[in-house]
Amino acid sequence: MSSTHHSICIVGGSGAEGSGLALRWAKHGHRVVIGSRDPAKAEAAAVELNERLGRSDITGAESSVGAASCDVVVLTVPFAGQMSTLESLKSQLGGKILIDVTVPLVPPKVSRVQLPESDSCVVAAQKMLGETVRVVSAFQNVSAHKLKNLDHEIDCDVLVAGDDKEARAIVIALAGDAGLRGIDVGPLANSVVAESLTSVLIWINKQYKIPDSGIRITGLPR
Amino acid sequence: MSSTHHSICIVGGSGAEGSGLALRWAKHGHRVVIGSRDPAKAEAAAVELNERLGRSDITGAESSVGAASCDVVVLTVPFAGQMSTLESLKSQLGGKILIDVTVPLVPPKVSRVQLPESDSCVVAAQKMLGETVRVVSAFQNVSAHKLKNLDHEIDCDVLVAGDDKEARAIVIALAGDAGLRGIDVGPLANSVVAESLTSVLIWINKQYKIPDSGIRITGLPR
Repeated sequence: MSSTHHSICIVGGSGAEGSGLALRWAKHGHRVVIGSRDPAKAEAAAVELNERLGRSDITGAESSVGAASCDVVVLTVPFAGQMSTLESLKSQLGGKILIDVTVPLVPPKVSRVQLPESDSCVVAAQKMLGETVRVVSAFQNVSAHKLKNLDHEIDCDVLVAGDDKEARAIVIALAGDAGLRGIDVGPLANSVVAESLTSVLIWINKQYKIPDSGIRITGLPR
Repeated sequence: MSSTHHSICIVGGSGAEGSGLALRWAKHGHRVVIGSRDPAKAEAAAVELNERLGRSDITGAESSVGAASCDVVVLTVPFAGQMSTLESLKSQLGGKILIDVTVPLVPPKVSRVQLPESDSCVVAAQKMLGETVRVVSAFQNVSAHKLKNLDHEIDCDVLVAGDDKEARAIVIALAGDAGLRGIDVGPLANSVVAESLTSVLIWINKQYKIPDSGIRITGLPR
């Protein structure tokens, strides 16, 4: 568990995955800002999340305003919006940790792995943003609706990849704060596993008629 | 469990991964042929495996001779030898199942994912061999030394990808015959997950100082 409290802007936080993380981190005591292109949408999402938790400190803001006020920024938008959103936030991200949750799904064949030319869309984000932003890949494989159910124990590990070791450690602690086990999987290039695994989990859900497959790394000390 | 008995040629079967599979399949009752470029080496490996099992029916042969005599061929050679080995066997593989266990590791950075231009080296094999060969990707993530210990229960699933559904089902049954749980992960393109995961498991072994990390798919019925 992290002993540090962070301020975390979740861009795309009105969506399912982002709002699940928002709930869990706010509950743990982190300051959470929901970011959206549309500030009214962000504020409405914040109100709804505060109601669920019986509190009032989750706020909503236009994404670049929210990002400017936080030390950790989390990107949870569809693949098609990843680069344009990051470009619009670039000037706010210097010196910060960006947790990129993007999965390179290409509809309609979302259960088929279709990697981008760079193999990893998170590596592509790091290249575009430059070295001053510490990009970490995480949370791609966790079911959004399980995240939103705070009583549910989630049987899925979080693969955490990034080129900065300290940033990986911070994100592993943040996974713990959300009730998840984060695993250090090394350099950002290794993000390919989490990015491709999401299509495989979608396939498994259909094939075996189950709601939420996930993965666990075995062989680790308990 | 499979009720069918197969004849299985394991090309590269004198290596650690291949000989572990050979032991387990022979013990289950499949006819196993160890294939190697050097027939004397293949025969010596067969003698050693027979001694371990207290039997005499595992045989050794030059790879193309072994492949010609079997209905399933398994490729367990290093990435650098994958394509040249398959080219030399191509005329023996028509109508058969080829289980390709190749992982695209690029030394010395084997704990870093470095996918080939085609993303999946098994997809590249299928393209080269043509549609008459039913290529299935499997067994990349299982620890070789655990495979060789027949008393060891292996805490790792086998991700089985291939474009032919029946061939996937046969390989899932073969995983079961080796004491492993095979999971249908869909089209051959989804082999990327297993191919990239091996580098991540190598990273995790180093990072967490453990001998054999693996993966389990969660959420499936027991």
